[in-house]
Amino acid sequence: MEEKVVIGIDVGGQTTKCGVVDARGNVLAQTIIRSDSFTDSEPFVRSLAEALNKIIADSGMQESVRGIGVGAPNGNYYTGDIENAVNLTWGGTKTIHFAKSLSEAMNGLPVALTNDANAAAMGEMTYGAARGMKNFIMITLGTGVGSGIVINGEMVYGHDGFAGELGHTCAVRHNGRLCNCGKTGCLETYASAVGVARTAREWLEMTDEPSLLRNLDTVTSKDVYDAAKEGDNLAIKIFEFTGRILGEKFADFIEFSSPEAIVLFGGLARAKEFLTEPIEKAMNANVLPLWRNKVRLVYSQLKESDAAILGASALAWEL
Amino acid sequence: MEEKVVIGIDVGGQTTKCGVVDARGNVLAQTIIRSDSFTDSEPFVRSLAEALNKIIADSGMQESVRGIGVGAPNGNYYTGDIENAVNLTWGGTKTIHFAKSLSEAMNGLPVALTNDANAAAMGEMTYGAARGMKNFIMITLGTGVGSGIVINGEMVYGHDGFAGELGHTCAVRHNGRLCNCGKTGCLETYASAVGVARTAREWLEMTDEPSLLRNLDTVTSKDVYDAAKEGDNLAIKIFEFTGRILGEKFADFIEFSSPEAIVLFGGLARAKEFLTEPIEKAMNANVLPLWRNKVRLVYSQLKESDAAILGASALAWEL
Repeated sequence: MEEKVVIGIDVGGQTTKCGVVDARGNVLAQTIIRSDSFTDSEPFVRSLAEALNKIIADSGMQESVRGIGVGAPNGNYYTGDIENAVNLTWGGTKTIHFAKSLSEAMNGLPVALTNDANAAAMGEMTYGAARGMKNFIMITLGTGVGSGIVINGEMVYGHDGFAGELGHTCAVRHNGRLCNCGKTGCLETYASAVGVARTAREWLEMTDEPSLLRNLDTVTSKDVYDAAKEGDNLAIKIFEFTGRILGEKFADFIEFSSPEAIVLFGGLARAKEFLTEPIEKAMNANVLPLWRNKVRLVYSQLKESDAAILGASALAWEL
Repeated sequence: MEEKVVIGIDVGGQTTKCGVVDARGNVLAQTIIRSDSFTDSEPFVRSLAEALNKIIADSGMQESVRGIGVGAPNGNYYTGDIENAVNLTWGGTKTIHFAKSLSEAMNGLPVALTNDANAAAMGEMTYGAARGMKNFIMITLGTGVGSGIVINGEMVYGHDGFAGELGHTCAVRHNGRLCNCGKTGCLETYASAVGVARTAREWLEMTDEPSLLRNLDTVTSKDVYDAAKEGDNLAIKIFEFTGRILGEKFADFIEFSSPEAIVLFGGLARAKEFLTEPIEKAMNANVLPLWRNKVRLVYSQLKESDAAILGASALAWEL
């Protein structure tokens, strides 16, 4: 029997990554196109289809493509639509029938679509740190905080396809930071890359504590990480604070779905040597005794460059 | 074809209710036995089996019993055990192989067991307010706050059988009330019958506001409800406070699993004329815009007297 392959696509704000993936998770061919040079979805889909046909030809698997999986901001698994994706130049406040359009542009190849964090969770379950797990929660610590929840081996989409917005659960009830979503105190205003930079700015202003970060014009989460590695006390305390806030909310999440593990993924997760201890401490202090020291905290094992493509491709195998 | 029936059993701290239930949810025969006159589980199981054989005979359906469903505090669906049930006089810190013992005492009839809140959710899905719903969260407002979560039409048990402890998620992060579980700030320390009474005591001490409640020696949640119905301002404000705390947490739960509805059940839910508005207000103020005014708040439609038995019996149909 001839081997089958699928296409994985990760639609991001700036770029869109695509790859041809086999059943063992090898990326046979891949490419990247710009997402942000379009103001309308139709020409973007045409450009994407062109890129896909090229990598399919490169892989030599033209006859074996089983389907396409897409991870995209605000992607809805049930409808295949991208809705109100304000981070996409062609998204805005519209509903885009993305899966349908792409399928048409690809001569009817079936297309499955979900949001980016769910795609990452699918990838982790199929190829990564969550292999063999039937109950886990994936938390993506990037510019924002995303999440993908797996229960009984299945992605949780909720009644409308939008479940798993753990980045917008409330971390700080009173005088919390204003979030892009319009609410205050959301987890992502503290525990994302942007949140860490915000903590740094606030603390540099509020205290006189000496810090390497004081030499910089603007502080990014990467700067905080670099300073922490140099032993900078303030930077280390910023990660302790971030970890505590994450751990406190993880305790709530555990009490909801009792996962085997919480899997961390994304740029900020690279700071694991500074985050693990405060997260685990706060998580175990705030969870019911029955789960204390029992739920594992693990980090993504997927190669960063392939992870997004693999995650999206995992969706296509279900088609 | 002869009609089949099942047995539903609700094990409570004081009493245990049992009934013979047909497929349409009619309770054909029922009885109640004491739970708290035993210090060991074995004699309790024998006494229970005796009671069951009697109601089975009463119903005239001896040949048609398909199985037994049990809802019990700290019941574990995966193992059929009751673990560390400190509220049962014969529970304590032991692990009791309850399903196994009962099945043996009933000549091998199959027994399924889960915790009481999950049983209530099963009942609501099979016979009550959640009929036809595939995604909902049941919150039981009794002495404590329990929860049963349904996703994609299935109960969420988690990796170990203990998922759905939403009463122990954190409602108040700083200086929260001490909970029986050893943590502080748990939702159930505020939003249970005991929590409402606690709020009343605190507020009566803290303020000079006149209230009917000042005439009482000890205040129960029922007293607060009665006073609110008389137009007592303090009592009404106690429910507003309770409702706000519930609504704030419900927003978090919606962001987790995106349910169609949150179903309220239990003694305190009878105060719905005072709880609904503050709950809905806080829930909609704290949830992401995409769910605002979209997730329904509904109340159990099961007859209180039958609800527990029906809930447990619903489990038996899955055997």
